[in-house]
Amino acid sequence: MNTKKSMLIVISGFSGVGKGTVVQMVFESLPNIQFSISCTTRAPRSGEENGVDYFFLTDEEFEKKVQAGEFVEYTTTFTNRYGTLKREIDQPLSKGVDVLLEINVVGAKNIKKLYPDCVTIFITPPSIDALKARLIGRGSEDPENIACRLEEIEAESKEIANYDYVVTNNVARTCAEKIVAIIRSEHLRVSRQNLDNLFDEEK
Amino acid sequence: MNTKKSMLIVISGFSGVGKGTVVQMVFESLPNIQFSISCTTRAPRSGEENGVDYFFLTDEEFEKKVQAGEFVEYTTTFTNRYGTLKREIDQPLSKGVDVLLEINVVGAKNIKKLYPDCVTIFITPPSIDALKARLIGRGSEDPENIACRLEEIEAESKEIANYDYVVTNNVARTCAEKIVAIIRSEHLRVSRQNLDNLFDEEK
Repeated sequence: MNTKKSMLIVISGFSGVGKGTVVQMVFESLPNIQFSISCTTRAPRSGEENGVDYFFLTDEEFEKKVQAGEFVEYTTTFTNRYGTLKREIDQPLSKGVDVLLEINVVGAKNIKKLYPDCVTIFITPPSIDALKARLIGRGSEDPENIACRLEEIEAESKEIANYDYVVTNNVARTCAEKIVAIIRSEHLRVSRQNLDNLFDEEK
Repeated sequence: MNTKKSMLIVISGFSGVGKGTVVQMVFESLPNIQFSISCTTRAPRSGEENGVDYFFLTDEEFEKKVQAGEFVEYTTTFTNRYGTLKREIDQPLSKGVDVLLEINVVGAKNIKKLYPDCVTIFITPPSIDALKARLIGRGSEDPENIACRLEEIEAESKEIANYDYVVTNNVARTCAEKIVAIIRSEHLRVSRQNLDNLFDEEK
């Protein structure tokens, strides 16, 4: 008998911190976790695939989903909209499957209100200077965009205190291992186990 | 700069669940943790060493420490007394060293009140039947003692819900790995980190 409850894992981190690589490695270690694909109106970056990294929508398509009540939450930035689909979270959770959601700090705050049992993890860089260097070095953004992102970093820093965990990304592999440890360990919480079934568990 | 705060880890488990072996393996993985040596008036079991597993005291010696206020908490069972020395916990913690304390459910409850930030872990057997078999098979107890311990198990089961984590001991190595994951992961909690120092951290 299964004593474990399925869990929603929410990961945020500064832009350019290397979340994508880390999250990819987490999935390699824990392949049974389901990735919640978010919707966005922003343009795909190089290498990003529709239906894999995001559902890339037009403003009209996004608005249609808002009207249809398909989002559990959505946020609007200066330039783009991001939304979390109800079905991407609730369907796997109801089947006992863990869900991992990568989302910005505003979205994470919304999700924590709706799913208070979710585990929130913030990925930070080893230093702000290194982050800036990485952000500028990525070359996919114009200077104005970079300035805007640096402002975002300031604002987002203030939100870290509201997360459950904060993990530094020095080496992606180590960072991923820490997140895997958090996920495994959270499943061992008394509050996430069915104590009545505890002694029937065979594994 | 160190962003981590030292942590008190409290481990309990049914008698005969194999705590000793598991705890030993945890120390192999995390050698910097300090084991808090408790005081007891019970007789040493085969292989137990004074000043290593416990401080084995006479009733008089124990009572003297009670009077001197050396215990942060102590409990009295039908036959024996157990006490946790203040210095065993507070000295390492004040130096930034994690402390691991193995203690029964009553003691753990006392400790949680005094150290609300401590992490409490309960080790369970895969099944009650297996535990009984192990308890009887150990051969160090007489039948009356075993009956008494089985009653204890019933009473202790009700306390598991108050622990932070519950870990099943099927295979000692796996159980120890889970506890190591819990300890590592707890150090990544936002509440256990000094966020002001976060961006100065080099490791």
